[in-house]
Amino acid sequence: MIVTYTDFGWEGPYIGQMEGVLRARAPQVPVVHLQKDAPAWNPRASAYVLRHLVDPFPAGTVFLCVVDPGVGTARRPLILKTREAWWVGPDNGLMLPAARVRGLCAAWTVPFPQDVLSVSFHGRDLFAPAAAALALGEAPAGESIPLEDLVGADWPDVCSEVIYVDGYGNLVTGIPGADLLPSSQVCLYGTRVAHARVFGEAPSGEPFWYVNSMGLVEVALRCDSAARYLGVGIGAGVVLENGSPCGLDEREE
Amino acid sequence: MIVTYTDFGWEGPYIGQMEGVLRARAPQVPVVHLQKDAPAWNPRASAYVLRHLVDPFPAGTVFLCVVDPGVGTARRPLILKTREAWWVGPDNGLMLPAARVRGLCAAWTVPFPQDVLSVSFHGRDLFAPAAAALALGEAPAGESIPLEDLVGADWPDVCSEVIYVDGYGNLVTGIPGADLLPSSQVCLYGTRVAHARVFGEAPSGEPFWYVNSMGLVEVALRCDSAARYLGVGIGAGVVLENGSPCGLDEREE
Amino acid sequence: MIVTYTDFGWEGPYIGQMEGVLRARAPQVPVVHLQKDAPAWNPRASAYVLRHLVDPFPAGTVFLCVVDPGVGTARRPLILKTREAWWVGPDNGLMLPAARVRGLCAAWTVPFPQDVLSVSFHGRDLFAPAAAALALGEAPAGESIPLEDLVGADWPDVCSEVIYVDGYGNLVTGIPGADLLPSSQVCLYGTRVAHARVFGEAPSGEPFWYVNSMGLVEVALRCDSAARYLGVGIGAGVVLENGSPCGLDEREE
Repeated sequence: MIVTYTDFGWEGPYIGQMEGVLRARAPQVPVVHLQKDAPAWNPRASAYVLRHLVDPFPAGTVFLCVVDPGVGTARRPLILKTREAWWVGPDNGLMLPAARVRGLCAAWTVPFPQDVLSVSFHGRDLFAPAAAALALGEAPAGESIPLEDLVGADWPDVCSEVIYVDGYGNLVTGIPGADLLPSSQVCLYGTRVAHARVFGEAPSGEPFWYVNSMGLVEVALRCDSAARYLGVGIGAGVVLENGSPCGLDEREE
Repeated sequence: MIVTYTDFGWEGPYIGQMEGVLRARAPQVPVVHLQKDAPAWNPRASAYVLRHLVDPFPAGTVFLCVVDPGVGTARRPLILKTREAWWVGPDNGLMLPAARVRGLCAAWTVPFPQDVLSVSFHGRDLFAPAAAALALGEAPAGESIPLEDLVGADWPDVCSEVIYVDGYGNLVTGIPGADLLPSSQVCLYGTRVAHARVFGEAPSGEPFWYVNSMGLVEVALRCDSAARYLGVGIGAGVVLENGSPCGLDEREE
Repeated sequence: MIVTYTDFGWEGPYIGQMEGVLRARAPQVPVVHLQKDAPAWNPRASAYVLRHLVDPFPAGTVFLCVVDPGVGTARRPLILKTREAWWVGPDNGLMLPAARVRGLCAAWTVPFPQDVLSVSFHGRDLFAPAAAALALGEAPAGESIPLEDLVGADWPDVCSEVIYVDGYGNLVTGIPGADLLPSSQVCLYGTRVAHARVFGEAPSGEPFWYVNSMGLVEVALRCDSAARYLGVGIGAGVVLENGSPCGLDEREE
């Protein structure tokens, strides 16, 4: 299975062209478009979203990840190997947090093909052919790279920031919620937000936090946009008050 | 074939995560996303839209239906069997009108899996695994439910309301148009609307009704939004005047 | 492989219904949705976009193309054969420029099936069944048509107009950029636009042109909408000044 993760949106031919390359080269391999609206031009936020999406995909999956504002510059194209999966995308940190969770083992560059290559669409012209080759069992053909040289190698495991804003204005943070106490409060730009288990139990007219379906702390507002209400977006810092696990407060403040 | 019908929209990872579960468990089964913008949080309107979409799908299809505002509450998760197909989704009426048309035979609950289950995304964590299991030929594992106990068991076959508003503001009603006379008039909030065969033959500047590609009466306005012009949306009652078949007037007024 | 190219958008059940017909009739054939937002109701602009998207698709591909404002009128439904691919869609020019590039050999009408056919959705009811049949190896069943009778047979190979406006307001023209000199200027409604190699090298606050990933001249504005800034959209004429190859100036002015 090849799984795409991009910031292309649904408009235009971009996803379709990339899938066309995959299907032309690996017709028997299923393609799943995991997400088309990763935080645009934001490899860091996109990386922490991806980290919480990859669990259900089985051994042998090839993740084709394209959030690539540096396309056409000197940034390296990468293949990563984790214990049971492959990853193809730019060397900008996008794949690092997710690949570490799945057991990062090795990294290679992707050799540029001989034929003409667009300067602006490596997803179609460089990464998709590499992903199809891996899905067909071919070995990486590029040079090996030390793992500590990868962009994002020093990024923390947890990102205490808003990493995604959905269509309703809900603010997804990079903070796992599994071990948080309901008495914990989330602080965003000076506003303290209390917990609710589900939307139906939240107070009307004020924001609340809950653990969303990705297992992350999400700040929402019933029937309204928490992003607009609080005036925050992707990248806004998030602070936990009391009940926070794992020393998050110290590390992130 | 597994056919998804949801109100998730295209944004976010939700459709992709659900498809990931299907592909991981049933890699050889094609997945078709029939509609991603079923009327949001509206199982009743969504049910009548679905009823008119299921004809072309062949014997053996598994319909995975998720318009589920009650997720996390006590509403039951369901498997339905019709003469030649399976249906998986919440017990909120969503699947009933369509399943009746295809010959509803039996119903079961879906047992909750042992491992961790999100409170907010049963589409991925409960319904998709059940749909994949059915597609692979497994029998339903839950308790049998009497058909008359299902939510929606008493809903009428025809819904004389606006059930969908498309991106152009066209108003799709739940009224089948096959037997209507062109002389019939459609009445929406006191406005009488006359028939046109196709858009190209409709008068400019005033709404008209025609039989759309789902076989339903649809009220439209050339180059403009009928929804805005008439000030109506999903749930608005629709009355037929003269030429109406099947005693619709009596039943729905 | 069946490749769809439509102006349906992602909303509604239309793409899903069409794919359902394909999967029901040809379950083993992969389906790729190349683009869902071809220029709406504009077969001419859509044709020139499609022309620059079909290269990567392999021998045997069936292109199912539906931008069809004339549906329900007397316009003919078509099957085209090129050296290595099939094309199904309306006789309105949509497929001509692309099919000529791939070596157009022959054309047939599509016979109307016996059973009920919607007047408004031939994509699902007429073209998709024909595309599935071709993908399964069946021969065209309709009457042969002389190639010179096809709508679009006399359209030029290059369209010196804006043919697509993307979500950012970038203006894609139908002019191939491969042979243009960076010193060429693009003239749109009296505004002269200079070249930049990539977005990152463009001046701030004024539009520039570059060669996009389709190989076409595209006019853009960093962090803003070139369409709004210049007040132009699909169909706007584009004139090249100096450095233009192939006598474009003479032909198009």
